[in-house]
Amino acid sequence: MTIYRHFYVKSHAITTPKINLKDLPGSAGRMDVLARCINSAFWLSYGIRKNVIFHTILHGEPNPPVYIRIEGERLRKMAPDERNIAIFIKKALERMREDKEIESTPGVFVCKKSFKELLEENKDKDFYLLTEGGKNIKEVNIGNKPFFFLGDYKDLEEKEKELLYKYKATPISLGKKSYLSSHCITIINWFLDEME
Amino acid sequence: MTIYRHFYVKSHAITTPKINLKDLPGSAGRMDVLARCINSAFWLSYGIRKNVIFHTILHGEPNPPVYIRIEGERLRKMAPDERNIAIFIKKALERMREDKEIESTPGVFVCKKSFKELLEENKDKDFYLLTEGGKNIKEVNIGNKPFFFLGDYKDLEEKEKELLYKYKATPISLGKKSYLSSHCITIINWFLDEME
Repeated sequence: MTIYRHFYVKSHAITTPKINLKDLPGSAGRMDVLARCINSAFWLSYGIRKNVIFHTILHGEPNPPVYIRIEGERLRKMAPDERNIAIFIKKALERMREDKEIESTPGVFVCKKSFKELLEENKDKDFYLLTEGGKNIKEVNIGNKPFFFLGDYKDLEEKEKELLYKYKATPISLGKKSYLSSHCITIINWFLDEME
Repeated sequence: MTIYRHFYVKSHAITTPKINLKDLPGSAGRMDVLARCINSAFWLSYGIRKNVIFHTILHGEPNPPVYIRIEGERLRKMAPDERNIAIFIKKALERMREDKEIESTPGVFVCKKSFKELLEENKDKDFYLLTEGGKNIKEVNIGNKPFFFLGDYKDLEEKEKELLYKYKATPISLGKKSYLSSHCITIINWFLDEME
């Protein structure tokens, strides 16, 4: 049985395809952070992790929220560098429809969706919120349907955390230091590899 | 006592400052890989790891080998995205002198140096070669002066590995899967954090 690994990163990236690829950290709303998180979620030396599903909701202007989901099993053509990943996000924003989810490029899905809807649709999963003061991941029994929630360069808001706890999320941490979100994903992937 | 962590990544990036920042993975010789390794070596959520020293030798045309060293204690102004890190490598290549090492920007040092010279200068350290089939890092007693050696998208050459073994390098691995070099560095940093 394949154990799928779900990651959600809340993004503050902009929600227009008019992205300046020379300025991902600035005018694009730290899209560089999101791109590195996607890199960490999927890439191995010789291929893509097919058992990973990556979710994000872009909260930047002018048209939030935009939900993007990337499925490792179907992902094609994307390269692991920030600029290339940003180009695929740009394509998703260009091709998005207001009324229904579409697959903008192979393995990349886009639609309008709120955080609450995302949680409701995935409530069969085991939710883990990465947060300082959470239980060390080594001391947690990770379930068979793990779904990890992280911020980008900003933490999740209190009301989002409260909602996660309503959905029985377990607060976890990776130790005493505070790591970049992309590094957290790399570490979690490795930790789960070693467990298997 | 501060335990310094040394990383070496062999790079195939080009050795001219004429870098096309739109094409780091192509004409710049996978400079994106090198940039992500530097990101992984130094960044925490709220600052830079001061106990990390990152070494690379660029092997691309037209003027190899170019040695670059980045010291966390002195590193300033660099941002964690690939494009920005590449700009600092570009500055190092612009300001390099053939006859002596210079500090091209705060914390970034550049000169002409061969792999053999680098090993000879650092032979007081504990060398670890990341390689498939190496002993799992969890089963290795990591020394007080660790120095980890990795390839970029290409493995080290056999003659480089042989040289490392002459300097008593220990072959180590991070498990059964083969990870991107940047991810290896993130995992090693975390592993050492947890050990401390």
